[in-house]
Amino acid sequence: MNTNPTIAIVGATGAVGREMMLVLEQRRFPCRALRLFASAKSAGQSLTFRNEPVQIEELRAGALKGIDLALFSAGASISRTFAPAAVQSGTIVVDNSSAFRGDATRPLVIPEINPHTLPAARPAPPVLVAVPNCSTIIMLVAANPLRQRFGIARMVVSTYQAASGAGASAMAELEEQTRDVLAGREAVPRIFPEPYAFNLFSHNAPMDPVSGLNGEESKMISETRRIWEDPEILLSPTCIRVPVLRAHSQSINITLRRPASEREVRAALLEAGPAAGVVVIDDRAGNRFPTPQKASGGDAVLVGRIRADPSCVRAGWTADTPVERVDLFVSGDQLRKGAALNAVQIAELLR
Amino acid sequence: MNTNPTIAIVGATGAVGREMMLVLEQRRFPCRALRLFASAKSAGQSLTFRNEPVQIEELRAGALKGIDLALFSAGASISRTFAPAAVQSGTIVVDNSSAFRGDATRPLVIPEINPHTLPAARPAPPVLVAVPNCSTIIMLVAANPLRQRFGIARMVVSTYQAASGAGASAMAELEEQTRDVLAGREAVPRIFPEPYAFNLFSHNAPMDPVSGLNGEESKMISETRRIWEDPEILLSPTCIRVPVLRAHSQSINITLRRPASEREVRAALLEAGPAAGVVVIDDRAGNRFPTPQKASGGDAVLVGRIRADPSCVRAGWTADTPVERVDLFVSGDQLRKGAALNAVQIAELLR
Repeated sequence: MNTNPTIAIVGATGAVGREMMLVLEQRRFPCRALRLFASAKSAGQSLTFRNEPVQIEELRAGALKGIDLALFSAGASISRTFAPAAVQSGTIVVDNSSAFRGDATRPLVIPEINPHTLPAARPAPPVLVAVPNCSTIIMLVAANPLRQRFGIARMVVSTYQAASGAGASAMAELEEQTRDVLAGREAVPRIFPEPYAFNLFSHNAPMDPVSGLNGEESKMISETRRIWEDPEILLSPTCIRVPVLRAHSQSINITLRRPASEREVRAALLEAGPAAGVVVIDDRAGNRFPTPQKASGGDAVLVGRIRADPSCVRAGWTADTPVERVDLFVSGDQLRKGAALNAVQIAELLR
Repeated sequence: MNTNPTIAIVGATGAVGREMMLVLEQRRFPCRALRLFASAKSAGQSLTFRNEPVQIEELRAGALKGIDLALFSAGASISRTFAPAAVQSGTIVVDNSSAFRGDATRPLVIPEINPHTLPAARPAPPVLVAVPNCSTIIMLVAANPLRQRFGIARMVVSTYQAASGAGASAMAELEEQTRDVLAGREAVPRIFPEPYAFNLFSHNAPMDPVSGLNGEESKMISETRRIWEDPEILLSPTCIRVPVLRAHSQSINITLRRPASEREVRAALLEAGPAAGVVVIDDRAGNRFPTPQKASGGDAVLVGRIRADPSCVRAGWTADTPVERVDLFVSGDQLRKGAALNAVQIAELLR
């Protein structure tokens, strides 16, 4: 990549697009010029980057010529249409959509976990790198220190997913419906199939009629296998949307390959720490653990409720007794580590 | 019990107390007279029962003399102070608090599951019957048809618990904080240790510093063992409060003792049906499953997302292949089946 690149954000007006601008600013990513692309209806408006207004352009064929780095977050069909052509004409693309996550010829990268799957040459050649699904990223960042130390055979995960995963309009829908309900009016769903104010529902991604898994759950399974390079790993995900604005939480029951004590598990997470994208918040006496609010706006996946699975606890158990299974509760900002931050971290590795 | 009993509700002004009045009305429970008890600060106010105002009295020693049936829902310490004395003076007590759930001399009853633990004589003698924790009730009602048909060895459960479990003031706190956040003001927690508006957090029950389980999780384990009369059953609960007003949801991964196919599991739940307290909502094509909103105000525990655990699914799997584990997602009204309805159902069995 050019050391002072021209950068494009495709999907600039979306919740992730705006967060990408913020993360580029905050991390002082070198940038000769920023160009913002969105649909025709936003073209001509402008957004502020480093205190300067940047006009939004409509994305058309050839518009990305001369761009060194393009961060895509405008949905799978836009990525399919424009991203491969951009790579062909010399652009490095980091794609936050689901379009290329299953394409074995494209790296699918969480920088803390599998940076070795990026091209080795620097400056990096034009390449398309996929950003995993936000739920996959948050789960794997939290669990990876345990996988490295003890191995992981299976995870049962139940998610508590925020509105932001469905974009800025979904966040607005949650706020608007909540205002309506508090005013005694009926909440009228538009984006989601179910009322959202003070309610929750099975993730709205289309469901496979045979497996009974929705798209979010299927992604968590297939992406985990790719990223951990472990086709054998077993996963039982249940994805649920909760009326939270922007950070995802997960309750994870982990079966280790090599039994470990609660103390060893906690130590592995503490030692991994922020360098591995993990911050432990696990205050039993104060009843303080990860929450979406604590995770919002931050870079780390917060990990707490670290404990031996009580179904493994026998008489005489102590925190030093090796057990086969442990439980965690985690929260991570879906817009940052689940999307924009992970994309910019990939770009940093390609500089 | 007297065929036309004098009934007392202790804790009448609480969320469960009010729901008890409503359930007695809706089920046309015979009632010569209703007396309502609460703390001194509510005494003198009145509530409406069967279109008549009933004045609230302060609960004092001896106040329950002459009461045939007392429904308690005013917290464990009130139950400890007044309930055993009431039984001694001839009252049948159904206690919604946690005070006597661990007392092996008192029945702990979910009518659809273990009615045989109630005294056999009719009219029933004075007795104290404990209502299980709301999360226990909702989980066991949903899972019991599978236990009866296939046996259950282990459950991993993550809860999505409503404000109502902490009472009417907690529901008001959620509404008030949400109004504040929508108006751009800071949410100030008073009842809960964490902000609640558009947030979620690990259940606020005190936590055991050694096991790392909070009180809600410990109750789910110990009460399940009592109610199912199975000291061996393994349970891995994670209890989380979500910003929902009045129904609890749960994601449950169940290990069966005898492998069963997805089709057999669905059939067992459908055949159990409303008589077992269960209604199946499981529309994969329409993406319609249980939600707290659908469960609110209803009697049934809604069960959906019925599927073979994908970690048990091998090549060649069909809905007729026996598997060891299945997943469910359930929602049940915490104030009704989780508390008031279960209490009144117990009283009905004692008539």
